[in-house]
Amino acid sequence: MTARSSLTVVLAAGEGTRMRSALPKVLHPVAQQSLLSHVLNATDAGEGSQLAVVIGPDHEAVAAEARRVRPDAQTFVQRERLGTAHAVLAAREALARGADDLLVAFGDTPLISAETFARMRAPLRQGAALAVLGFHAADPTGYGRLVVENGRLVAIREQADASAEERKITLCNAGVMAFDGKGALAIIEKIGNANAKGEYYLTDAVSIVRELGLEAVVIETSEDEVRGINTKAQLAEAEAVMQARLRKAALEAGVTLIAPDTVYLSADTKFGKDVTIEPFVVIGPGVTIDDGAVIHSFTHIIQSKIGKKALVGPYARMRPGSSLGEGAKIGNFVETKAAVIEAGAKVNHLSYVGDAHVGASANLGAGTITCNYDGFLKHKTLIGEGAFIGTNTSLVAPVTVGNRAYIGSGSVITKDVPDDAMAVERSQQTIREGGAARYRTAKLKEKAAKGK
Amino acid sequence: MTARSSLTVVLAAGEGTRMRSALPKVLHPVAQQSLLSHVLNATDAGEGSQLAVVIGPDHEAVAAEARRVRPDAQTFVQRERLGTAHAVLAAREALARGADDLLVAFGDTPLISAETFARMRAPLRQGAALAVLGFHAADPTGYGRLVVENGRLVAIREQADASAEERKITLCNAGVMAFDGKGALAIIEKIGNANAKGEYYLTDAVSIVRELGLEAVVIETSEDEVRGINTKAQLAEAEAVMQARLRKAALEAGVTLIAPDTVYLSADTKFGKDVTIEPFVVIGPGVTIDDGAVIHSFTHIIQSKIGKKALVGPYARMRPGSSLGEGAKIGNFVETKAAVIEAGAKVNHLSYVGDAHVGASANLGAGTITCNYDGFLKHKTLIGEGAFIGTNTSLVAPVTVGNRAYIGSGSVITKDVPDDAMAVERSQQTIREGGAARYRTAKLKEKAAKGK
Amino acid sequence: MTARSSLTVVLAAGEGTRMRSALPKVLHPVAQQSLLSHVLNATDAGEGSQLAVVIGPDHEAVAAEARRVRPDAQTFVQRERLGTAHAVLAAREALARGADDLLVAFGDTPLISAETFARMRAPLRQGAALAVLGFHAADPTGYGRLVVENGRLVAIREQADASAEERKITLCNAGVMAFDGKGALAIIEKIGNANAKGEYYLTDAVSIVRELGLEAVVIETSEDEVRGINTKAQLAEAEAVMQARLRKAALEAGVTLIAPDTVYLSADTKFGKDVTIEPFVVIGPGVTIDDGAVIHSFTHIIQSKIGKKALVGPYARMRPGSSLGEGAKIGNFVETKAAVIEAGAKVNHLSYVGDAHVGASANLGAGTITCNYDGFLKHKTLIGEGAFIGTNTSLVAPVTVGNRAYIGSGSVITKDVPDDAMAVERSQQTIREGGAARYRTAKLKEKAAKGK
Repeated sequence: MTARSSLTVVLAAGEGTRMRSALPKVLHPVAQQSLLSHVLNATDAGEGSQLAVVIGPDHEAVAAEARRVRPDAQTFVQRERLGTAHAVLAAREALARGADDLLVAFGDTPLISAETFARMRAPLRQGAALAVLGFHAADPTGYGRLVVENGRLVAIREQADASAEERKITLCNAGVMAFDGKGALAIIEKIGNANAKGEYYLTDAVSIVRELGLEAVVIETSEDEVRGINTKAQLAEAEAVMQARLRKAALEAGVTLIAPDTVYLSADTKFGKDVTIEPFVVIGPGVTIDDGAVIHSFTHIIQSKIGKKALVGPYARMRPGSSLGEGAKIGNFVETKAAVIEAGAKVNHLSYVGDAHVGASANLGAGTITCNYDGFLKHKTLIGEGAFIGTNTSLVAPVTVGNRAYIGSGSVITKDVPDDAMAVERSQQTIREGGAARYRTAKLKEKAAKGK
Repeated sequence: MTARSSLTVVLAAGEGTRMRSALPKVLHPVAQQSLLSHVLNATDAGEGSQLAVVIGPDHEAVAAEARRVRPDAQTFVQRERLGTAHAVLAAREALARGADDLLVAFGDTPLISAETFARMRAPLRQGAALAVLGFHAADPTGYGRLVVENGRLVAIREQADASAEERKITLCNAGVMAFDGKGALAIIEKIGNANAKGEYYLTDAVSIVRELGLEAVVIETSEDEVRGINTKAQLAEAEAVMQARLRKAALEAGVTLIAPDTVYLSADTKFGKDVTIEPFVVIGPGVTIDDGAVIHSFTHIIQSKIGKKALVGPYARMRPGSSLGEGAKIGNFVETKAAVIEAGAKVNHLSYVGDAHVGASANLGAGTITCNYDGFLKHKTLIGEGAFIGTNTSLVAPVTVGNRAYIGSGSVITKDVPDDAMAVERSQQTIREGGAARYRTAKLKEKAAKGK
Repeated sequence: MTARSSLTVVLAAGEGTRMRSALPKVLHPVAQQSLLSHVLNATDAGEGSQLAVVIGPDHEAVAAEARRVRPDAQTFVQRERLGTAHAVLAAREALARGADDLLVAFGDTPLISAETFARMRAPLRQGAALAVLGFHAADPTGYGRLVVENGRLVAIREQADASAEERKITLCNAGVMAFDGKGALAIIEKIGNANAKGEYYLTDAVSIVRELGLEAVVIETSEDEVRGINTKAQLAEAEAVMQARLRKAALEAGVTLIAPDTVYLSADTKFGKDVTIEPFVVIGPGVTIDDGAVIHSFTHIIQSKIGKKALVGPYARMRPGSSLGEGAKIGNFVETKAAVIEAGAKVNHLSYVGDAHVGASANLGAGTITCNYDGFLKHKTLIGEGAFIGTNTSLVAPVTVGNRAYIGSGSVITKDVPDDAMAVERSQQTIREGGAARYRTAKLKEKAAKGK
């Protein structure tokens, strides 16, 4: 079988007014990625496939997101909203170029899997002219019913037009359609607007296909998969479905999730073996967690790499570009950003490590802060292997602390410290005997005076 | 229609022993407000309405809470617990003054909405003498059944007295009653105690109303609304119902809640447009969040104002009196208290800003701490516009840092810094070449000696 | 009735390959304790009882865990895996010593309660030779059915061997069995391996008991209790069941859990009266919380003691050996470890207190850090009663701060401070007028140059 060429048209022109947001609907995120990106990834038919995205006027941000996800995406603007068939024809130029298959999907149904889209295209190779995605609705009221006879789809009956018998059908139209590429444009162009709203509906393709003596079929999937997003509540429900999938996959891969419902993952989170994640953890995009690593509670990680047997948190925040070596440790109330922390190094408490490289087995005391920003520019901090940084130390970048160097507590380090050297920035400790007692007397007098 | 005068009697004398707490039952909180306050707010009939709260002996704290919420509240002590009608008559003085309506509600049913209470009062304007709140119980066993004939309530039948036929009734008595004001006192005084426990039950009002040839009706609501609180488990369930309502309302208003079940809101939380709240956020009373603001995970906010497009968290704690200007930013492990942070200012990491004013576009480095308390009194810190505070700086209040001033890292600032000035408190950094190596040798010797 | 001697054999030799983990299955934790430890604790029959644990080859870690929980545990290695009866006989030496009862339990079913195991042993005192644990399965397919006649267990019928009628039985075999001690070894040794897999199944004991004219009975429990752990998903489900139990018990004891589902407890957590726990709290093993204490959100506690009316968090992390006195307070972004904090003392913000003793009513300012580790050894910090530690102070241990002493902000304290003394380590604050303006000009020039 030679590879078939495939065109996907994603309809993403909806206003999304019920989202009550200035952001175009398909740009709202689920599992930290836009609705549109989920659809573009799932519909991707690989090599030789083309993508056309139909966007609304003034929705350049949607076009940009489409190109970010699929650099080859062509975008087409639907100037007026005259129905789904009209929307598809906004991409007429792409349709006219021809492809073996035409898949029409929607930018606001992010939960349909790649496997389902692949199943949609399959019947076209066996001679069907049209495949329609269907699902059994728990409550079919309001949906278009799929009337099937002898395994063929014979009609999509809208609620208003359905007979009492047809209303009992629970198999409903999810909207997604796959056409055999040859006749697709001609069929869609035949769709008229002789209906109450005067709009062009893609569902009419079924009767046209039938009139042409061609075959339409139904591909079934679950109701969960086809849910569209129109409100913030539906967006949250889709997030819940997506997170449930991600958690299930992680558990199946052997990740220990003590309380799966309290762990938020991203679609691209990568896990090694014997990884443990405690309750209340948020993992954003671009995170890799290697074998045996433990992510303690109240941790937040994004675009970071966690090495083998590394320990993270509780209360650790790893921002983009953080990397932990084998057995390295990031403790509580510690923030890292663009920081490479080599094997066995420890940053246990109350620290900020940004734009930094921390050598293997270095130990950063509580309150260590890399002063990476001078108010105008960012600078780098380099800390050598086995270095020991005393508590409450400020490392004013650009600065280098040598291998095995030792910094005394409370120092502000502005000059490089050589290997094996000890550096301190500190005054003499002065003690005034009875000073606190005298201070107390004075303060209590002051307080009493204020109280008057 | 002229405004009707309305008297509400809230019964709040229960001991609440099953709560296993020294705190009177109605003072336990749901959505961070006392059960009583929810009831007082929902029963408030506005201008011209009176409120009487019946409390238990030695429950002055309940009276105080009633007056906090409704300064006009009168409180009456029920000395003995002899039934609901007896409790209402503890407020006889208020009843005797007369009102067009008398509503009897309970301090431990915090989920009944203002709309439901308003529906209770409506039939009285159309000639009914009594309206009883009813609900269809999933399992009616144990509840008093509401016997309705021709749209009229003819009896409340207790479980023990109900016939087999009556036990099939699922419409049950929620306890709340609204009386036409004219006859109310006379009817309640007619209630006797000829029953097993020798108590005076308000439910007997129905038969008295019927005997007087007057009309009683049922107002229905959901079982969810009428749940009473008797245990800590029920308190937690009520919290869950209340939070579900608050989250639903927020979603409908267009707030993006990525994981609604992990966000705790207060009844008075105010949201602008396009607000996003990430998972694991707790919002206490008195919080306003303006358009486009983002509340990141693990954030805790109370009595604070968050300006347009401000960014908060993750791990930010805003305590009472915090205010963020447009585009201002509070980052991780940052605590604010009584702090005004003007537009565009940033406090990104590991800081405490209390009793302070931070000018627009100022930048406070990691580890900045306002020393607002000297052990006896609190003092203010003023930071000018565009000022830059180096990392690990202590600002010993009272102190003023001028506009565009620059503070070197690690400084303790005790004297005011003029506009455009640079201030540092720091010693010389000393470096002892090989000092760390010598230190290591000595320490290893010490460690070995201890190991003996 | 004289005390009966009891032998428990816990089968813990399973590989647990479906856990996809290098850790032996029974060592995975639920509610922060190993599966095995839950089973060993629940099966403990008290004084005079013996315990034998059957482990897999090379699972010395399982033996060690068994001995940690029950120092008297004997362990036996099952070299080949030839069925449950074969596994029990690995402990033949223990069986041969004799006991009044023999209980056979499984290391991977951690939810069976001590009460259920006690019920298993009871019928043996009334003459039964065998008691089998049963449960009504929602879907019995695949389970062995318990065929009961006249109150006696007559057979365990495996799915494959069951008649159509028997397949309708929902009472299923949970695997756990209790034998009268006298005949137990003989019965188990009679079990053969004439079956498809050629293995020795403990379930065959039922027919042998019957053939001997002895009595077998069924003890019923819930399906929830008998769930075994084979996958990480099942481990997470067991955790959820266990947490639900712990939360329910806490609520019944009068603990206020605002959002029970967001609080993680340990089986040994101890609560006083009127304790409140806010949302998002993790409590590990060994924690005691006294009357009136409040645990605020985002708190993580392990092996610590919280005194009466103490306030903890939000964002507090109490590590092992922390102890809070009455009314003491640990605030946000504060970590304690091996630290005794006496009554009324406060550590409100951004601090690390480790290997320390803090006297009553002492006040540690924000950013206070005990430098307990010098890179080689740990040392102690002692802070006196009523002492006041200024912000951003480093206390370099070993060091003692006297009673009522006062430390100035930003100090590094390396020498002991006497009672009532004031100590400061600080330089002069220098101010360069216009210095920030000149710096800005220079930096903007530098930035522009870099931008080229």
